[in-house]
Amino acid sequence: MPDPSSSSPASSPSTPSTPRRTASPALRARLAALLPGRVSEARDTLVQHGTDESYHDPLPPDIVVFPESTEEVAAVVSACAAERVPIIPYGAGTSIEGHVGAVQGGVCVDLRRMNRVLEVHVEDMDCRVQAGVTRKQLGEHLRDSGLFFPVDPGADASLGGMAATRASGTNAVRYGTMRDAVIGLTAVMADGSILRTGRRCRKSSAGYDLTALLVGSEGTLGIITEVALRLHPVPEAIASAVVTFPPGPGPAAGSTVPGGSSADGPAGELRGLVQCVEAVMACGLPVARMELLDDLSIQAVNKYSGTSFAVAPTLFFEFHGSSSSVAEQAEAVGALAREHGGSDFEWATSPEDRGRLWQARHTAYWAAIKMRPGCRGFPTDVCVPISRLAECLLQSQEDVEAEGLLGPIVGHVGDGNFHAMLVIDPGNADEVARAKRVVGRMVHRALGMQGTCTGEHGIGYGKLPYLLAEHGLPPLQVMAAIKSALDPHHLLNPGKMGSAAHTLAALAEAEAGAEAAKP
Amino acid sequence: MPDPSSSSPASSPSTPSTPRRTASPALRARLAALLPGRVSEARDTLVQHGTDESYHDPLPPDIVVFPESTEEVAAVVSACAAERVPIIPYGAGTSIEGHVGAVQGGVCVDLRRMNRVLEVHVEDMDCRVQAGVTRKQLGEHLRDSGLFFPVDPGADASLGGMAATRASGTNAVRYGTMRDAVIGLTAVMADGSILRTGRRCRKSSAGYDLTALLVGSEGTLGIITEVALRLHPVPEAIASAVVTFPPGPGPAAGSTVPGGSSADGPAGELRGLVQCVEAVMACGLPVARMELLDDLSIQAVNKYSGTSFAVAPTLFFEFHGSSSSVAEQAEAVGALAREHGGSDFEWATSPEDRGRLWQARHTAYWAAIKMRPGCRGFPTDVCVPISRLAECLLQSQEDVEAEGLLGPIVGHVGDGNFHAMLVIDPGNADEVARAKRVVGRMVHRALGMQGTCTGEHGIGYGKLPYLLAEHGLPPLQVMAAIKSALDPHHLLNPGKMGSAAHTLAALAEAEAGAEAAKP
Repeated sequence: MPDPSSSSPASSPSTPSTPRRTASPALRARLAALLPGRVSEARDTLVQHGTDESYHDPLPPDIVVFPESTEEVAAVVSACAAERVPIIPYGAGTSIEGHVGAVQGGVCVDLRRMNRVLEVHVEDMDCRVQAGVTRKQLGEHLRDSGLFFPVDPGADASLGGMAATRASGTNAVRYGTMRDAVIGLTAVMADGSILRTGRRCRKSSAGYDLTALLVGSEGTLGIITEVALRLHPVPEAIASAVVTFPPGPGPAAGSTVPGGSSADGPAGELRGLVQCVEAVMACGLPVARMELLDDLSIQAVNKYSGTSFAVAPTLFFEFHGSSSSVAEQAEAVGALAREHGGSDFEWATSPEDRGRLWQARHTAYWAAIKMRPGCRGFPTDVCVPISRLAECLLQSQEDVEAEGLLGPIVGHVGDGNFHAMLVIDPGNADEVARAKRVVGRMVHRALGMQGTCTGEHGIGYGKLPYLLAEHGLPPLQVMAAIKSALDPHHLLNPGKMGSAAHTLAALAEAEAGAEAAKP
Repeated sequence: MPDPSSSSPASSPSTPSTPRRTASPALRARLAALLPGRVSEARDTLVQHGTDESYHDPLPPDIVVFPESTEEVAAVVSACAAERVPIIPYGAGTSIEGHVGAVQGGVCVDLRRMNRVLEVHVEDMDCRVQAGVTRKQLGEHLRDSGLFFPVDPGADASLGGMAATRASGTNAVRYGTMRDAVIGLTAVMADGSILRTGRRCRKSSAGYDLTALLVGSEGTLGIITEVALRLHPVPEAIASAVVTFPPGPGPAAGSTVPGGSSADGPAGELRGLVQCVEAVMACGLPVARMELLDDLSIQAVNKYSGTSFAVAPTLFFEFHGSSSSVAEQAEAVGALAREHGGSDFEWATSPEDRGRLWQARHTAYWAAIKMRPGCRGFPTDVCVPISRLAECLLQSQEDVEAEGLLGPIVGHVGDGNFHAMLVIDPGNADEVARAKRVVGRMVHRALGMQGTCTGEHGIGYGKLPYLLAEHGLPPLQVMAAIKSALDPHHLLNPGKMGSAAHTLAALAEAEAGAEAAKP
């Protein structure tokens, strides 16, 4: 069997270069005994497990294992820990910031066979699932229960992966993110011990919030093997609608739209759209979804999904509630949209029409990539306070254009969160460099507006360079202290958050020391 | 000046006995120089700062300081850390599980002079306040902004204290707890460094959730000096209403209320009430408040507040929304209440009437204590999944009666959270012992139903004995590891959570070791 570590593919420019920590023959034998027939060193399997849905080059692990229970994961981690071999958890592989890359080699723990829905408590509106259960699988399981799970990042991600990356998506404006959805979890810690957090009640003040600490820790503090989730009643009525903000006479007479007029061209329309979003939020209207697609995204979606939306900045809405509440929300939102230059609603009320609408939105990323055959996606997301959203969006859009890049923009704009879906030729070094510059400026623009370098994609290693700029040194020192306390040998998803925080904190301290030492 | 540490009052039976760590004359001089005129060793001040609103005997600190800025808190902590003298943060003194007790003596940091609202961002619906700003002060400040801060534990607690104890209260069923409300914070860590967490955007996936880790840590990981909070638009319409569940013919014909009929007597009414609550939640009705008062609480409230509510298990509701949404919610809830044996609504729609209603609810604790002159409150709270609420409530009520104790019950029942407000004669050792037994059984009952030993009061040292039973050993080991990583000398609020977790974990390990060593 060839040693995959010796034939690692060319790293992308942002790949951290750290020494591999390779499993011994004894560890390989131990894993094979623990999970008979569920250990692979096949080249294709390794490459697949080191690859995400973005432009990052594969960083394959040395071994992939397929456990079926928390206890099996614990046994694998214990075996690896004894040799100080890294362990990288793998859910559905739908992350996009290099989370699954085996930066130092090691054993990938593929959780997809942990795909059982363990408990559903209809009366308490919660459930418990194994980490490999996907969002759509849970949706199917709940179909006749009167309940649904709202967090929807688009991809059919695993719920363990969504917890690990603090995912959110289109419904977060109303139902919150995985931070809100996860009420407890089971995780295997770096020493192989099993941690269970959370109770089934709706709140507790009993102890440090370990659930929240693990959610978003990207497999660096523990491998999440089960998650308990809060569910919601299926609303009595659901309606979706589309509003475009076409070039035209601009906002309705009498409205005050500072800085936004048709004289701005497309910028004016986008500004009107964002002002509509701000007004919806300020009124406390409980919209379930409020999604921006810019004109480029609409072009991509129309071509990919065979839709015929007017090519202009567009908002996709969804309203949940009683029939009369949905009607009332729609009327209020419709009035605000018209006031800011929007069209009338184009409705989708049947489940089929709604399904088509959101399918079109969810495949926008793939639609964007299809605009340039042979290219890859380089998606990035930032999140800013809503009052700064228009400015951040417009400047980012201009920057993408100025660098001659293709980058349709979509956004969960009720949260102030948007994505530039850059499409790049990975073989064109200059284009890759320009894309990186655009992303760097977008991040620093968002940080300058008191926003974050990532609203929902997470850090992986793609956004590591920005952690220090976002947090400053003391939070990274605290993160590093927690990482070192819980995973002293940096075995869990090394070279990522926590480990990286450690490195960055040390680096910044050294720099501060050097600065202080100047005469 | 007398040394208060030598004349500490008699400890309550649950006071942890740990050695005091006393400040040196040099440290006293240092503090006096740092905060001129804002350091006190006056006996009354010390006792006041070691006393909460419950039955716990005072555990006074040795010194109280009154800083006015984060930097001053940092200077105090640095000075104390150099001598390894404990530091205990103090907000408004409204906690009830012994949080403020100076278990090992030390320096109390009174944050009440840090009472400035630093920023309000109306368009983004967030604000930043110093830790000593109280809930009512913030409400006043926001009065004409169109925004409000929803978390309302009843007491006029400080917002820093509410963050530190993960407080919630009457609005949590709709707006969430401090876990949801705090979007960022500033804290002084054990080494005197200043940690700032969170950005002003609505979500982020960038790093470990240090905000959530500090919220609820009860001053044991850092002293919270500023909090950034999410605000909400003042609803267009607000209406409050009271529904009683009087003895009578029982639930309306045709409804199915398993186990609940008028043959149960008061238990039947309470069961009907809880089934009404379950139905409201299952329908996804967005009630803003849904509060239980049992018949004893109503008696107490009527006497204390001069109200004339019918003496029966009662629900206080509040509805927020548009006028039509409020009307629709009220109609739907009214129908559910009638179905489960409730009366018609008694409305309170004017701000004055609503104020009187909620004032009556908020003073229920003091009303209970007034039922037995000369006695003190021994309030305790648990939280269970809603499907177990009726059972937990009824068994707890029976147990209080069986022990011959006075203990009106109120509850944030939409969250499955309720309080037994035991009223005890602290001089009657037998009565204190009976109260402790009742609380212990109530906790274990809740834990057996997958609930928590405290939904919102926190641990302090009053609920320390139950942490291990709730979490088991691995979570306590993780909490202890985090505590030791961030506060290696256990200076911050020692003898509480984290420190205690350390102790308990060591104890349990020793026990497990002894067990394993048996032949």
